[in-house]
Amino acid sequence: MKITFLGTSAGIPTKQRNVTAIAVQPHQQADWWLVDCGEGTQHQLLHTSLSLSRLTTIFITHLHGDHCYGLPGLLATRALQGGSQNIPLTLIGPAGIKALIEGICHHTQLYLNYPLTIIEVNSIPTTLTIDQHQIDVVPMEHNITSYGYLISPPDIPGHLDAAKAKALGIPPGPIYQQLKQGKQVILEDGREIDGSDLLSPTTPAPKVLIAGDNANPQQLLPWLKSVSLLIHESTLTEPELLRLATTIHHSTAAAVAKVANQAKLANLILTHFSARYRDSSNQGKLTINDIRQEASKHFHGQLFLAEDWQQYTLTTEGKLLLTQLIQKPNNTPAINC
Amino acid sequence: MKITFLGTSAGIPTKQRNVTAIAVQPHQQADWWLVDCGEGTQHQLLHTSLSLSRLTTIFITHLHGDHCYGLPGLLATRALQGGSQNIPLTLIGPAGIKALIEGICHHTQLYLNYPLTIIEVNSIPTTLTIDQHQIDVVPMEHNITSYGYLISPPDIPGHLDAAKAKALGIPPGPIYQQLKQGKQVILEDGREIDGSDLLSPTTPAPKVLIAGDNANPQQLLPWLKSVSLLIHESTLTEPELLRLATTIHHSTAAAVAKVANQAKLANLILTHFSARYRDSSNQGKLTINDIRQEASKHFHGQLFLAEDWQQYTLTTEGKLLLTQLIQKPNNTPAINC
Repeated sequence: MKITFLGTSAGIPTKQRNVTAIAVQPHQQADWWLVDCGEGTQHQLLHTSLSLSRLTTIFITHLHGDHCYGLPGLLATRALQGGSQNIPLTLIGPAGIKALIEGICHHTQLYLNYPLTIIEVNSIPTTLTIDQHQIDVVPMEHNITSYGYLISPPDIPGHLDAAKAKALGIPPGPIYQQLKQGKQVILEDGREIDGSDLLSPTTPAPKVLIAGDNANPQQLLPWLKSVSLLIHESTLTEPELLRLATTIHHSTAAAVAKVANQAKLANLILTHFSARYRDSSNQGKLTINDIRQEASKHFHGQLFLAEDWQQYTLTTEGKLLLTQLIQKPNNTPAINC
Repeated sequence: MKITFLGTSAGIPTKQRNVTAIAVQPHQQADWWLVDCGEGTQHQLLHTSLSLSRLTTIFITHLHGDHCYGLPGLLATRALQGGSQNIPLTLIGPAGIKALIEGICHHTQLYLNYPLTIIEVNSIPTTLTIDQHQIDVVPMEHNITSYGYLISPPDIPGHLDAAKAKALGIPPGPIYQQLKQGKQVILEDGREIDGSDLLSPTTPAPKVLIAGDNANPQQLLPWLKSVSLLIHESTLTEPELLRLATTIHHSTAAAVAKVANQAKLANLILTHFSARYRDSSNQGKLTINDIRQEASKHFHGQLFLAEDWQQYTLTTEGKLLLTQLIQKPNNTPAINC
């Protein structure tokens, strides 16, 4: 599974970071999904190889603008660009998303040339099946209805025991492909072989939980038991929360890191950073590194702080690898005057 | 008056051009206005010195998404950023804009910390007065209600006839400031002097018409008589329109140029180019230069083709000057893989 961050800033965009959107490419599939769609998501996609015509499902965690104001433009561009006509798109989100989108379509006379199915999550537990993946909707704690999406890919098929097959005298050839798929085949000598007898047991694929805005990571503990990767907001650090002395309805780096450690999580990606944290070191000012330091004090697994255009690959063994799609320093245009 | 193009692409954004938005800074005013607000307008503004707290009026020409989908995010960021609290904002647009914005605010729980006044233009003629400027709403021809905004700045005050003042024996000093403003003053010797008697006549300031999407530039002729600058869409060239053989509800470069020439217009800026026209020369493909060549065949005044982050200054004498705020070649991030 590939996971590309298209926006990692909380609330407002900055020159370096757009508001939230995450592209998910399920293992061995050309189609892809989007989790959240802040304003400018379609602009960010212009710099990737992801095509809107292959986007089949959009999950919205909650209806705050920085997570959904890019939806109308993305839906419109998918209709205006060639190649998407009649290719269905499913939009999943909290109650209200249907009326929001329908109202915008009505007032701006937006007519889509593909079927758009809008699924509102009205109660928990809700479990969906999308492209053979099980999606569990996980409740978050926020000042608007907010969800996370727990993605459970289909089990990984077992490996064919080639030695055993050879011992049975099965001749080399395309028949092995069918056996690998667990199919029953009839050999030339008339013997019936059940491919599943030659396969090692299936193994569960690594699961990913992409959380929405959430002030209470502790309540995710029961969901984290079998998860290989948690992607969670980390809007502030603890000292900054103390300084603000207010309820922010968001999580600190420490709070998420503690829960991730308690769950013995292998991989944690933090994202959705307040714009007050700068990317470059800035004399006495808050930086993203403050968030990293706070989280790494409490979490001892593999920790990443997401950046725009980072692409992570979660292998079928649950290993998380990172590629930077676009070099950051070139991202800000030179200002003449 | 300064005019900054924040988006010059029609329908969909490209790597080089965002969808429509134009910032207008009236002469000698720190506050500024926005005409249209396509998705990503707030992102474009990050690269200018224009502050959202000084944005006082937004004009929307029509409710197609590429002209208004940036509104919710811009309104939200104006509330989230410091400095705008209680500073009023006026939003002017076609009927439906109030329901559109109120619906989005409701479903996404967007609460603004400043007063937002929404003015719907329900009939033509409509004339508004914004910051001492007369704004005439000009009807366009499009497949949704579309307007242009004719901006008539206040008359330019006359110059003080210093020789005449000296001849009257008025002593040098701050009194001259009051005379320049046409005020009545009493001299130390008891004489009453009326400043307006010493001023040359006021002169009308150059007018600007910023048109919305429009398939019929011919109908603008009566409005163009006293206009120094027309900003108009030029979505396609004539050969491309012929090739498409369909009704596009937009103007060709030739159609706009002919009307501008007929009106003996001094300055014409074309914008809102279909994404099929590329900025760089592209073997056999359509380029922006095709639009330029078609327009310049028919229009003999000063012609510009807008680019993102171009800033034009219209002097009080009606002269149009151009500055490029951001160098284009650095605008596209380097893609690693």
